[in-house]
Amino acid sequence: MSIYKQLESLSISLPPVTAPVASFVSSVGSGNVLYLSGHIAKRDGKPWAGRLGADLTTEDGKTAARGIAIDLMATMHTALGDLNRVERILKLMVLVNSAPSFTEQHLVANGASDLLSEVFGDKGKHTRCAYGVAQIPFGSCVEIDLIAEIAG
Amino acid sequence: MSIYKQLESLSISLPPVTAPVASFVSSVGSGNVLYLSGHIAKRDGKPWAGRLGADLTTEDGKTAARGIAIDLMATMHTALGDLNRVERILKLMVLVNSAPSFTEQHLVANGASDLLSEVFGDKGKHTRCAYGVAQIPFGSCVEIDLIAEIAG
Amino acid sequence: MSIYKQLESLSISLPPVTAPVASFVSSVGSGNVLYLSGHIAKRDGKPWAGRLGADLTTEDGKTAARGIAIDLMATMHTALGDLNRVERILKLMVLVNSAPSFTEQHLVANGASDLLSEVFGDKGKHTRCAYGVAQIPFGSCVEIDLIAEIAG
Repeated sequence: MSIYKQLESLSISLPPVTAPVASFVSSVGSGNVLYLSGHIAKRDGKPWAGRLGADLTTEDGKTAARGIAIDLMATMHTALGDLNRVERILKLMVLVNSAPSFTEQHLVANGASDLLSEVFGDKGKHTRCAYGVAQIPFGSCVEIDLIAEIAG
Repeated sequence: MSIYKQLESLSISLPPVTAPVASFVSSVGSGNVLYLSGHIAKRDGKPWAGRLGADLTTEDGKTAARGIAIDLMATMHTALGDLNRVERILKLMVLVNSAPSFTEQHLVANGASDLLSEVFGDKGKHTRCAYGVAQIPFGSCVEIDLIAEIAG
Repeated sequence: MSIYKQLESLSISLPPVTAPVASFVSSVGSGNVLYLSGHIAKRDGKPWAGRLGADLTTEDGKTAARGIAIDLMATMHTALGDLNRVERILKLMVLVNSAPSFTEQHLVANGASDLLSEVFGDKGKHTRCAYGVAQIPFGSCVEIDLIAEIAG
């Protein structure tokens, strides 16, 4: 099934992507590898601030991570023109804004991993590194970085 | 010398590997690059919890990092069938669960770097990024992520 | 224009590079991808210690990140022999030693991103992941990791 039908069946619409006005970019391709910039959690179009284990629950974090996965797909769609060109999601790095006592970064990360797996099937099964960080730009609760392989 | 003879001479036996029951995987190959998921420190088969500079010493951290390097080799052995196919360890990312005052992440990381260098020789000489994080899943003291080049 | 003329026009001279006396290395090439080790901020040849949001200002952090970008270019120059071989800066990972309240990691990172963009033009426009970490080796205020594509 096409990735877009899969997204539709999940009632997901990809948001518009605006390029950063900066000296960095949202994505760069090199050979058949696509690198994406870290995407931060947003709610109502603004950074979703908060710290897991303090202001936010694990469930909030999962929701935030799922939202970032949608934004990452939107960035890949814009970069590639067609998400069906994604051959494999290679790696997610999931950064969780964490109070010192919070140790469920892996459960937060599942919000993104599960969705990518649902949308891309076996091609969405990636390697992953999830951990707690001291802060994230704009106080955002989660940030995710992605590397994908693109069909030749 | 074969990598397995080298492991034997160091009295290292690779543990069995169990695939994560999740929407992510332990390793993904892309071209001749193998990406591994972050592996956390374990002791007696359970997460080795603790924070460097608080509950654990630098020497403990080195031991934990060395143990993770063994687990990473076990994952590569399972993924590749033969560790002699490793052409080069390209990169380690070493995350150390750190109290605010702990600044010896590089010494902790040496526990993994030194072992990979002993086992793989020049092919084990990698680039590295080591730093202190706010937390790690299950409260584990160290987490390591690895990228390797595989012979064509 | 040659990268070296560009550096000269910015009055930047690349410092000498000393290889780490360790089981890891400053850079490794794999195919046409060059991986660099994390480089920490230095001042007067010593680690520039401090925490953003506590001992150091955002402006200090930008200066530190710019200095690291110079060191990263020095490492690439040593590895490649000629910086004009850099086809694209693919990714920066910018780690900022952050007090819990500091949320301007992206502004700190601009110190490196802006310089690479000035020196390499469009080839310097990279993807980026910037966030706050709990500590950095030697208490350094910023650490940056880089991946580049090299001309075939």
